[in-house]
Amino acid sequence: MTITPPALSVFEALESEVRSYCRGWPAVFDRAQGSHMFDEDGHTYLDFFAGAGSLNYGHNNPVLKRALIDYIERDGVTHGLDMSTTAKRAFLESFQNNILRPRDLPYKVMFPGPTGTNAVEAALKLARKVKGRESIVSFTNAFHGMSLGSLAVTGNAFKRAGAGIPLVHGTPMPFDNYFDGTIPDFLWFERLLEDQGSGLNQPAAVIVETVQGEGGINVARPEWLRALAELCERQDMLLIVDDIQMGCGRTGAFFSFEESGITPDIVTVSKSISGYGMPMSLALFKPELDVWEPGEHNGTFRGNNPAFVTAAATLDTYWADGQMEKQTLARGEQVERALRAICEEQSGTHFRGRGLVWGLEFEDKPRASAVCKRAFELGLLVETSGPESEVVKLLPALTISPDDLDEGLRTLARAVRETA
Amino acid sequence: MTITPPALSVFEALESEVRSYCRGWPAVFDRAQGSHMFDEDGHTYLDFFAGAGSLNYGHNNPVLKRALIDYIERDGVTHGLDMSTTAKRAFLESFQNNILRPRDLPYKVMFPGPTGTNAVEAALKLARKVKGRESIVSFTNAFHGMSLGSLAVTGNAFKRAGAGIPLVHGTPMPFDNYFDGTIPDFLWFERLLEDQGSGLNQPAAVIVETVQGEGGINVARPEWLRALAELCERQDMLLIVDDIQMGCGRTGAFFSFEESGITPDIVTVSKSISGYGMPMSLALFKPELDVWEPGEHNGTFRGNNPAFVTAAATLDTYWADGQMEKQTLARGEQVERALRAICEEQSGTHFRGRGLVWGLEFEDKPRASAVCKRAFELGLLVETSGPESEVVKLLPALTISPDDLDEGLRTLARAVRETA
Amino acid sequence: MTITPPALSVFEALESEVRSYCRGWPAVFDRAQGSHMFDEDGHTYLDFFAGAGSLNYGHNNPVLKRALIDYIERDGVTHGLDMSTTAKRAFLESFQNNILRPRDLPYKVMFPGPTGTNAVEAALKLARKVKGRESIVSFTNAFHGMSLGSLAVTGNAFKRAGAGIPLVHGTPMPFDNYFDGTIPDFLWFERLLEDQGSGLNQPAAVIVETVQGEGGINVARPEWLRALAELCERQDMLLIVDDIQMGCGRTGAFFSFEESGITPDIVTVSKSISGYGMPMSLALFKPELDVWEPGEHNGTFRGNNPAFVTAAATLDTYWADGQMEKQTLARGEQVERALRAICEEQSGTHFRGRGLVWGLEFEDKPRASAVCKRAFELGLLVETSGPESEVVKLLPALTISPDDLDEGLRTLARAVRETA
Amino acid sequence: MTITPPALSVFEALESEVRSYCRGWPAVFDRAQGSHMFDEDGHTYLDFFAGAGSLNYGHNNPVLKRALIDYIERDGVTHGLDMSTTAKRAFLESFQNNILRPRDLPYKVMFPGPTGTNAVEAALKLARKVKGRESIVSFTNAFHGMSLGSLAVTGNAFKRAGAGIPLVHGTPMPFDNYFDGTIPDFLWFERLLEDQGSGLNQPAAVIVETVQGEGGINVARPEWLRALAELCERQDMLLIVDDIQMGCGRTGAFFSFEESGITPDIVTVSKSISGYGMPMSLALFKPELDVWEPGEHNGTFRGNNPAFVTAAATLDTYWADGQMEKQTLARGEQVERALRAICEEQSGTHFRGRGLVWGLEFEDKPRASAVCKRAFELGLLVETSGPESEVVKLLPALTISPDDLDEGLRTLARAVRETA
Repeated sequence: MTITPPALSVFEALESEVRSYCRGWPAVFDRAQGSHMFDEDGHTYLDFFAGAGSLNYGHNNPVLKRALIDYIERDGVTHGLDMSTTAKRAFLESFQNNILRPRDLPYKVMFPGPTGTNAVEAALKLARKVKGRESIVSFTNAFHGMSLGSLAVTGNAFKRAGAGIPLVHGTPMPFDNYFDGTIPDFLWFERLLEDQGSGLNQPAAVIVETVQGEGGINVARPEWLRALAELCERQDMLLIVDDIQMGCGRTGAFFSFEESGITPDIVTVSKSISGYGMPMSLALFKPELDVWEPGEHNGTFRGNNPAFVTAAATLDTYWADGQMEKQTLARGEQVERALRAICEEQSGTHFRGRGLVWGLEFEDKPRASAVCKRAFELGLLVETSGPESEVVKLLPALTISPDDLDEGLRTLARAVRETA
Repeated sequence: MTITPPALSVFEALESEVRSYCRGWPAVFDRAQGSHMFDEDGHTYLDFFAGAGSLNYGHNNPVLKRALIDYIERDGVTHGLDMSTTAKRAFLESFQNNILRPRDLPYKVMFPGPTGTNAVEAALKLARKVKGRESIVSFTNAFHGMSLGSLAVTGNAFKRAGAGIPLVHGTPMPFDNYFDGTIPDFLWFERLLEDQGSGLNQPAAVIVETVQGEGGINVARPEWLRALAELCERQDMLLIVDDIQMGCGRTGAFFSFEESGITPDIVTVSKSISGYGMPMSLALFKPELDVWEPGEHNGTFRGNNPAFVTAAATLDTYWADGQMEKQTLARGEQVERALRAICEEQSGTHFRGRGLVWGLEFEDKPRASAVCKRAFELGLLVETSGPESEVVKLLPALTISPDDLDEGLRTLARAVRETA
Repeated sequence: MTITPPALSVFEALESEVRSYCRGWPAVFDRAQGSHMFDEDGHTYLDFFAGAGSLNYGHNNPVLKRALIDYIERDGVTHGLDMSTTAKRAFLESFQNNILRPRDLPYKVMFPGPTGTNAVEAALKLARKVKGRESIVSFTNAFHGMSLGSLAVTGNAFKRAGAGIPLVHGTPMPFDNYFDGTIPDFLWFERLLEDQGSGLNQPAAVIVETVQGEGGINVARPEWLRALAELCERQDMLLIVDDIQMGCGRTGAFFSFEESGITPDIVTVSKSISGYGMPMSLALFKPELDVWEPGEHNGTFRGNNPAFVTAAATLDTYWADGQMEKQTLARGEQVERALRAICEEQSGTHFRGRGLVWGLEFEDKPRASAVCKRAFELGLLVETSGPESEVVKLLPALTISPDDLDEGLRTLARAVRETA
Repeated sequence: MTITPPALSVFEALESEVRSYCRGWPAVFDRAQGSHMFDEDGHTYLDFFAGAGSLNYGHNNPVLKRALIDYIERDGVTHGLDMSTTAKRAFLESFQNNILRPRDLPYKVMFPGPTGTNAVEAALKLARKVKGRESIVSFTNAFHGMSLGSLAVTGNAFKRAGAGIPLVHGTPMPFDNYFDGTIPDFLWFERLLEDQGSGLNQPAAVIVETVQGEGGINVARPEWLRALAELCERQDMLLIVDDIQMGCGRTGAFFSFEESGITPDIVTVSKSISGYGMPMSLALFKPELDVWEPGEHNGTFRGNNPAFVTAAATLDTYWADGQMEKQTLARGEQVERALRAICEEQSGTHFRGRGLVWGLEFEDKPRASAVCKRAFELGLLVETSGPESEVVKLLPALTISPDDLDEGLRTLARAVRETA
C-alpha cells in the first residue's frame, strides 16, 4: 500500500502542537467498522489499537449502533446531568444483573464525569475522605490520568513534568516483578508501613492497575494482587483498582481482577464501558464507603445518556453469559503463539500479556517505534507503550475475527522482520 | 400538574449518595425536545436549566440530530483520540471560518479531553509551563471544576473540602462588585503584586469567568474585564477566561468576553460547544503560548468525533451571521422585564444577568430552593446557585420561543409568589 | 572618623556569599559595651541597631555579665536540653512573678529551641494541631523567620524565593493602614471568612506583629489589634502575636500587645529575652492549648541555661516595676522630636514608630541605604528595613543614655542632610 | 543512691506538657563538670548522654571555660549577627587550619543560625536553588530536625504528625542494612532514578547521616557511603551529610564521613561545634555551590560569638593533631567490649556503634526504657533512641576517663541485669 501524506493544513495551522497520534499515523481517517478504519484516500487499516482500549467491541458495532440511533431518533434524553432517566435506569439494571450480581460484587455506582481521569479523581477524593489521610501509594510505571490528582499517581516523568507544580501526596512502590522476581513481593512497602520511623506518610489508599497498559504491558500475577489486597486490609488502606483500560473484558473476565479473586474497595471503569467509544466512566465502591454528600463531586457530562444506552446494549449482548470471556482467552492464545514465534525468530525481543492485551518489547528500544511506523505503512495500526516507548502494544478489539487477527499478527511479524 | 414520585428503586439501591439533581427533581426523565423534557409518567417540563448551560440550542435540536444520525449511519469515526479525521477537519474549518476569523482571534485549538475540567487543567498546566511559576489567581465564588487542579481555583468551601488534601497554589481575589462598588477595582490585587513584601507568590496566570454561573450569576462589567486584562499585561500574568458556561452564545456574542473587547491569552470552552449535550471541550490560546510537547497532555476521549459533527453543525447553522446574538439579547430583555416585575412586587429580591443567563436572588436565602421546588411542581425546571444556594438561576435554551420563555417566566413569578 | 577597610581575607575567602551586614559595615568588631561597639582598629560606633532588637539592655550589660560569669564560674549547667535545672526554675519563677502574674496572663511556657524561627514553627504546629486545619493567615510585609514553616508566612519576595519549593498553606491579608485608612479594617479578610464561596481555606490561626520591624516599621493601632482579636474569636481562629522583635520592652510595655489590651492565644518571644544576646526563645500559650505530647516538638539547644540566667537577671533588674516602660516611652519621645525635625527639614521623608522602634522612610528609596552608609562613616550603626529597603530603622538599646541618643540622632540628621 | 523526687511545682505549673527528658530524669540539676552532673539535692550522675551529643568535650570543659570567661570579661562582642568580628575570624582561621586544610576539604562556611535545624533548612534551600528541583531523598529512620523543612526529611511518624500539614517534597529510601544485607544496596533507589516511568520526582539532593543517632544507632558502612556518593554524582544529585550529631569527633575523626573517604557536597555541623553546649551551627559546601545572594538566608543568632570563642578553643586544643581521634577509637573499643559482654550474657540484646556512639538494642522493646530508668536510679544518665525507643544509646563525652567509662558501663550492665 502506498500512502500519500495528505495536506494536513488545517490541522497544522490550527491544532495545538500537543497533538500526537496524528503524527505517527499521517492519514485523515473518515470511517470505521469493526476492526478496520478507512482514510479519506481510500486506504484501509487493520486496527490493533482500538481507541487505546476504548473500542473493545470494535468500531461502530452494529448492535450498539442500532440501539444508539433508535435512542437518538426517539429523542431520548441526551444530556442528563445526574437526573434519573430511563436510559440510566436501564444501564444500572443491566449492570446489576449482568455484572455485579453474578460476581457477587456489592458495589455502589457513581457517575463521576465521563472520562477516566474524572473517575480516578473521584476515587482518590473518596479514599481520602473515608480515611482522613492525604497520601496515596501508586506503582512504578502506573498511568492514571492527566488532571492533577491523577497525574500525581502516574509514573511517567514526561507527563508529570507537564503539571507545572510539584506533584506530591503520592509515593511510588515497585510493581509486580519490578526486580525480575529477585526481591520478595512488598518487602519494601510493608517494611515502610510497619516501621514507625520510615518517613512514609500513612497512605489512605493504594491505586493499582492489574496490567499496566501505558507502562509497558506489565502483568501483575494473581498472587501478587492477592497479597496486595491482604496488605491493604492489614494496614488499613483502601485498595483502588484502576480498571479503565483493562476492564470491560480486555483481559478475559469483565473485571481484570476477577482472575485473582480479590474484591477491591474502589474500582474505576471507563474507556470501553460505553462500548461505542463515547465518553463514560464509573467509580464503583463498597457501600460502606459511600460517604459522599449529595453534589460533593459533580460534573457537567456525568449523565451522557447515549453512552448509557450503548453500555447497556454491550452488557446485554456480550455479558449475559461467559462466551465473551472464553472467546477473548482463545484469541489471546492466538496472539501468544504468534508473539512467541516472533520472539523465537528475533533475538532481543520479549513478549507478555493476558487476554487480549499484549506487549512486544525490544531491547533495542527505538526499534519499537520503527516497527509501528512500518506496520502503519503496511496497513496495521499499532502503538508503543512503556517508559521509553520500547514496547509494541497490541489491543485488538475483543470482537476481532480469527482471520483478521491472524492477518494483523502476520503484518506485525513482517514489520518486525523488516526493521531488524 | 400532579406528580406521583416514581419508584426510584434502582437509583436508590445502586447509585451513589453523591447524586444530586435527581433529588430536587424526583422524576424519571425519558425524552426531551427543544425546551421541554418529558418524564416516563407523561409529564412535561419546561426546561430553564438547559443542562447547566450545555444545551444552548435546546434538547435534541433537529438540525444537529440530522447531522449526528447521518454521521453514525455512515460509520463515521466515533472515537478518534487525536488522530486527524474528516469530522475534526470539518469542525476546525468551521470554527476558523465562523468564529475565529470574523473576530480576528489568533487562537490555536487544543482538544484536552471532553469535559470542562479537562480544559481548565490543560489551561493551568500550560500557563504554569509558559511562565515557569506555580501560583494562579482566581476570584471569589469562582467555579472551574472538580479535579484537583480546577478545584484549587474554585471558591465553594463544600466542594473544596471534598479534595481531602489542602488545595494550595491558588489565591482568591475579589470579583467585580464584591464590595458593592465601594472599593476601587483591583486595589488589593494590584497592591499585592506591586509590593515586594506582600507575601503573594507571583502568579503565572489569572483565571476568571465573565459571569459567574455557579457563584450566583455575578456579572463582571466590561470595564472591569478590561482593567483586569491590562493588569495581567502589566504584571506579566496570563489571562485565562473560563468560558465553559458563558461561552457559545450564552451572553449574546459567541464568546462572553467579546463585549468587553479583550483578547484573553487562554480560553476554555465546553458545555454547549457540541450543541447536542455531548462531551467536548476546547482550550484556545495565543499561538506563541503553544509550547506543548506532542502528547504532553492527553486523554482517551479528546477525539469525540460525533461531538465534532454536531459542533460544526451549530457553527454553520447559528453562527454564520449575527442573528443568534441579536435574538439572545432580545430574549434577554424579555427575561429582564419579567424579573424586574417580580422584584418590584416582591421585596427582598434582586436580579441580575446578561444575555440569557439571569439570577434572581433572595435575601431570605432558603426561599430560592423553595421557589425551585414549587416551580418543579408547576412543571418548570430551574435550579439555584450561589455560595448558599440563594439565587434562582435562569439558563433557558437560546433557541427558546418567546411564548415558552413567557410561560416559564410566568410560572417562575407564580412560584415566587406562592413561596412568599 | 576615617576608617581604613580592613583586610577581610578570611571572611572573603572562607565565609559564604550569604553574609550581609558585614558588607554594609566593613569593619572587624572586637568589643562592645552598652550602646557602643569597638572595632579592632580602635574606632568606636554608636549602635542604633542593637542586634536587630536582641540587645535591648545594651551590649554586655554589666548586671547581666556579673550573673553570667558567676554562673559559668560555678559550673552551672550550660546545656540542659529540657531537663529541670535550677537556672530554668529561677527563670520561670522570675517570669511568672515579674511578667505573667502582674499582667494577669495565664500562659504556659514552652522552650522550643533558642531562635525566633523555632518559636514560630512551634506556634504554627500547635495552632494546626489544636484546630485540625492547615492554613494560616499572615499579613503583608510580615517577617517571621527563615525555616520553611516561618518563611511561608513571611512576606518578603526575595526571602521567599530562597525556599526552592512553593510556599503554600498561608494567605496574606492587608496589615493595618495598608491602604492609608481608605478601606475599612478587615473588610476583605472578614468577607472571605464569611463567604462560603470565597475560596479561602479556613485558617487555623492568624499570626501578626504589632509593629512590623523588617517590614518597614509599620505600626498597628491598638484598635486594629483589638478588632483582629475579636475577629479571631468570632471566626474560631487562634491569634498568634509574634513578639520576637517588639517584645521585651521595645515598645514600652514588656509585651507589645499590652497597650491594646488584647490577650493573644499564642505569643512568641525571642531576641532580647536573654538580654545578653544569647540565643533563647519562648512560645507562650493559653493553658487549654497545651495539647502537646511529651517530646512532640524538641530541639538540642532549647535548654540554653546561661541564657536563662541572664534572662532572669533582666526581669529582676528591669521589670520588677514600671520604671523601664516609663523610661522607654520618654526616650521614644526624644526620638520622635528629632525625626519630626528631620522630616520638617527634608521633604520626601516620613517617620513612624512606638516606644524605641522608629522608622524614617524615604520616598527616594535608595537614599535610605545611602543614609546608613554615611551614618556608618560618621560612626553610627543604623540599618534599613521595608520591602525595598526604603526605611532607616532605629532600634537603640532601651538603656541608652539621653546624651548618646541625642548624639546618634544628630549624626542621623547629618547623614540625612549630606545625602540630600 | 536514694533520690527523693523534688517538688517540681513551677515546672509542672508553668512549663508546657511538651517537656520530655525531665520526666525520665526527675531531678533538678544544678551544676556539671566533665562527665558528671549534680542535682540540687547533692546527687551525682555520670553522664552518658552528653547533651544528646552536644558535649563531646564534657560539661564546662575548663580549657573552654577559661577562654569563654576571658572573652566575656573583656567585653568581647556577644551578639554579632553576621558582622565580621575578631572572634569569628579566629574561629574561621582555626577551622581552616585545623580542620579543612589538613583534610583537603574545599568548603565555604555559612553561619545559618545557631541550631541544627537552621543548618539543615539552609542546606536544603541551597540544594534546591542550585539544582532547580524541589524533591529531596532522605533515609528510613533519619532525623534532621523539627522545623518544617527538616521535619519533612525526618522519619519518625510521631514527630512528623506534629507538623499539622502534609509533609511532602521528600521521599524515604532504605538506609544501609535496612534489609539485613539481603538486598543489594541502592537497588530500589537507583532503579527509580533510572526508570523514566517510576514516578519519583527527580531529587535535588540526598540527605544522610553516617550513623543515625535518633534512628537507633544505625551505622552506615563506608562502602555504602561511597556507593551513595557515586550514585549522587552519576545521577546529578547533591549529597548532604548531616553531621550534626556524628561530627566533631563523635565517631573518631572530626567528620564522621572521613573514614569512608567521600567528600559530600554539603555538610551540616552543630551540637558539639561550640564545644561548650552553646548554640552554634555551620553549613559547609563546595565553593561552586555558594550561589547565595547576600542575606537570602539569615537569622538573629547566627553570630553567637561566645560560641565562636569556645569553638576555636576546641579546635586548637583537641584537633591540632590526631590524638583525639586515637583516644576516641580506644575508648570505643572499651565500650564495645563491655557491650559484647552484656549481649553474651543477656539474650535478646544486640549492640552496634562506631567511635563513641553505641546502641544496645532490646528485642523486648520496652525493656530499653526500663534499663534507662534503672540506670538513672543508679546514677547513670542514658537515653533510648530508635523508632520504638528500643535502643539504649551511649554518647559519653569524648573526654571521659577510662575509669568513668568503665564505671558507667558496669552500671549499665547492672541495670540490664536487673531489668531482665
